[in-house]
Order: sequence, then structure tokens, then C-alpha cells
Amino acid sequence: MPILNKDMTLCISLSARPSNNGTRFHNYLYEALGLNWIYKAFAPMDLAQAIAGVRGLGIRGCAVSMPYKEDVIALVDRMDASAAAIDSVNTIVNDSGVLTAYNTDYTAIAQLIERNKLDTEWSVILRGSGGMAKATAAAFRDAGFRKVTVVARNEEAGRNLADLYGFAWKPSVEAALQDAAGGDGAADVLVNVTPIGMAGGPDADSLAFPQDAVDAARVVFDVVALPPETPLTRAGRAAGKTVISGAEVMTIQALEQFILYTGIKPTPEQVAAAEEFMRAQ
Amino acid sequence: MPILNKDMTLCISLSARPSNNGTRFHNYLYEALGLNWIYKAFAPMDLAQAIAGVRGLGIRGCAVSMPYKEDVIALVDRMDASAAAIDSVNTIVNDSGVLTAYNTDYTAIAQLIERNKLDTEWSVILRGSGGMAKATAAAFRDAGFRKVTVVARNEEAGRNLADLYGFAWKPSVEAALQDAAGGDGAADVLVNVTPIGMAGGPDADSLAFPQDAVDAARVVFDVVALPPETPLTRAGRAAGKTVISGAEVMTIQALEQFILYTGIKPTPEQVAAAEEFMRAQ
Repeated sequence: MPILNKDMTLCISLSARPSNNGTRFHNYLYEALGLNWIYKAFAPMDLAQAIAGVRGLGIRGCAVSMPYKEDVIALVDRMDASAAAIDSVNTIVNDSGVLTAYNTDYTAIAQLIERNKLDTEWSVILRGSGGMAKATAAAFRDAGFRKVTVVARNEEAGRNLADLYGFAWKPSVEAALQDAAGGDGAADVLVNVTPIGMAGGPDADSLAFPQDAVDAARVVFDVVALPPETPLTRAGRAAGKTVISGAEVMTIQALEQFILYTGIKPTPEQVAAAEEFMRAQ
Repeated sequence: MPILNKDMTLCISLSARPSNNGTRFHNYLYEALGLNWIYKAFAPMDLAQAIAGVRGLGIRGCAVSMPYKEDVIALVDRMDASAAAIDSVNTIVNDSGVLTAYNTDYTAIAQLIERNKLDTEWSVILRGSGGMAKATAAAFRDAGFRKVTVVARNEEAGRNLADLYGFAWKPSVEAALQDAAGGDGAADVLVNVTPIGMAGGPDADSLAFPQDAVDAARVVFDVVALPPETPLTRAGRAAGKTVISGAEVMTIQALEQFILYTGIKPTPEQVAAAEEFMRAQ
């Protein structure tokens, strides 16, 4: 790290339980690009006062994580389409006191749908009903997908999410597979946005979709970012499918934050090095 | 510097024109003592929002400089005696959301009066009428000095300051010398709290008191911190007087901030090294 000095631009994150991911990713790129910037994670005492501090201290950028993604909406000046689409904010950019809110999770998922050339005619099963599932569903809807089934055990949460985007809801993967693509037991795209497969969780070793469904699919998309390879992404790779990982979502959303804050687009090599540094904790 | 991480404690400064002094002094000691802390200077957009940010982000300590030293009083929860004595704040300590204001300039001057064994019976001429002159006058008054003459060309400012502490006012050094110690043209202690002798200023090469007065004095005290040796301190050393410099005030006030924030008292060697690092810009 360079010696700290008075002219440094500060970016921060606000989260009830900060991780070191953003701190390492952003500070690595600041150093690699020779920017006089620093990034620091905070667990705020009070959200409104923290956002006042973003204004009052002239903090350039502010990542927003659980549980502040919705509450922060009332505290910003403008909502970018990415945040407005899902009423959820994960990024704030401060332009001379005007705070604009973005959601780079949504942006990252939208980019990955496009980059992997997913066909809007394909059938999709999306498992999950939380905040990230909402970002994912909105990105699929906005990309033009119509044959999407939301799977969630909780009927109210599942139906609410499905209704929001004109999708179907089913209480189980099995029921969704029966329904998808004319009841042939298969779907083209399997998307996991539940904690199944997440490191340290109770279902760390579980597969979010049955092996048969993986074999019958074209694309496997696991939004779980830790570990970088989950049981689902490993099964997808073994079966020769197109695989999109949560690690890619995480890197792209952080990169989009970096670009929003600095206006600079690092090279793919710099991004890969920052990602490696982020993971080497 | 260590790699930045999520658990670091942040201290900041608020100033319309930040310098690198605090940033270098504090960060040097954090590293020397192995503390997971960082210090960053800010030129705030809005003082009230910046202080809200100190609360909301859980910023541990906040140095306050021109022009915020009085305005910040309304924004803190408690005034330590050092700040209350002069209605001026240069340091805020955040204890779990409770903000206590201090003035370590006052503390530093009080320490230097005691450390150099200045006798309260001695006559003092104090040149200046700004915020730092007030801190200096208060420290002399609270130490027990009574024979103090404030010199200021501006009669209103000079009389106000003198009246506040029960001191005399004179419009010129010459008039004060005539008055001091029974009109023998000498004073025991000469204190400069004007920009005379300040590096880069219009009077950088001027002596704040006549050579005769320096020769007749016991103690020469220049609150100007840059350069570390001013025309006045050099004249005092050449004449074999006890010399107190603004550089000492600056280091002690920064050290007192460090102790208030961290609860740790560095060794004299560590302080000297931090001071050297601060000046090596």
C-alpha cells in the first residue's frame, strides 16, 4: 500500500457483517492502477448517519450490503434503472453531494446472460426467493425471458416474486421440471439462488438440482459465490454444460462498482489479479 | 503500510485545507505499534453531516481544524475542560456514539509551561489575538500567571482576549514592554502567537520581538510550528534563553490526540520517529 496522504479519495462499504472481499479487490486495483484512493469496510452504527457521512466527508463511493439494501433507498437522491428495477441498492456514487444508487448485482447477472448467449426462448428454473433471486429474476425478465419458473418452498415469497415478473411459481424443483418445457422433465437453464452449496452452510455438499436435470439442461448458473466452485457448477462442468458461477457475478459486480467510482476500466488481466488477491485471504 | 482490512479502526481530521501532518504522524505510530488503525484527512462538504458520519460510521477519533473549531461545539455531546476553557475544539473522541470534545492545543501549551518550570510570578507578553492565542492565554491563566499583557494591533480583539482572562492589553510590543515588570522595558516570558516568522508568510524572516527584549527575557515561546526553528526561537537559543517551539506544541498536541484515541502512550523514541516522519514530506 502507498503511504496514506491527505489527498486520497475514499470509498467504503456498509454491511452489518463486513467481509474483506471489497476491501481487497478495490485496494488491489487502486494500487495496480496507481490511483491515490483507499477503500475501507464499515459496520455502521446508524445507516442514516453513515449516509450523511458519505455526503459530509465527500466519500466517493459506497457499497451497500445486507441488511441495508432497501432501507438506503430513502437516503439517496437518484435511483439508476439497475436499482429501481428491483428496489434494491448495492452501490452509491457521490457526484459532488448528489447520491445515485445502482445495483451492480443486477448489472452483473444481465451481463452474464448476454455474454453466455442465453436464448430467450429457453425455459428457466430459478430456485430461490430472496433479494438476490429478485435481482436474478429481474435480469432474466428484462433480457426477454418468459418461460421462467420460480421455485420456492415458501408459497407467499415464491408467488410474490413470480407475479412481480409474470413468471410461474412451483413449490419444488420436481414440480417445476414437470411444468417446464411441456412437462418433459427438463429445463434449458437451471439457476440456483439459494444457500444450497454455500461454503460453511448446512447444505454445503448438496446439489441444488437433481443430476438428471443437470444432464438435461443447456446451462447451469449458480449464484452462490463461495466456494468459487459449488457442487452444482462442478456437476455442470462434468456434464459439459455452459456454467456460470457466483464467483463471476461477484467479480463483475465489484468491477462495475470500480468503474462507476473511478471511471476507469481495468484490463482483464488486472481484474483477474485483483480477483486472485481477493480470494487469497 | 499494512494491507487494508475490514477490521481497521478509522480516525480522521476535518479541515478546510488539510495538511499531511496528522496523517503521517498517526499512521506512522499505528504501524510502529502494530495497531490495525488508519488515519485519513478530509476537507468536509458539510460539517454537520461529517460529524453525523463520525457517529454513523463509528469513526473513533476526529481532529478538528480551521474553520470548524467553534462550529463543532454544537454537534458534540460533551465538552472536556480543555475545550470548554476556550470554547474551541480540536479533537473529538467517539465512545460508542458519545462524542467528547477536547482541545489538545490547550493541553500541549499547559504541559510545556509546566515542563519548562515557568514561574507564575514572571511577567509575560503574549502577542496575538486569534484562536491559538486564546488557547495560550487560557493555559497561562489556568497555570496561575497574572502578569500577562496581550499585544494586538486590533484593539477590540486584543481587549476582548485580555478581558476574558483578566490580563492587560497593549497595541504594540513597545508599549507592553514599558508596562511589563514595572516599566523597565523587559518581560520574563515572550510568547508569539502571530504568523510572524511563519514559513511562506509575508513576515517569514521577521523577529516577533525586538532583540533587546529577547536578551532581557528568561523564556522565548514561539507557537509558530513551521519552520520548526523560527527567527524568534533561533534568537532565543543564540541568547541562551529557555526556548519553547511551536514544533513542540504541534507534536505534543498530536501525541495527546493519539493517546485519547488509542489509550496507548508511545515511547519518547517512537514519538521522535513519528515527528521526524511527519516532517520528512
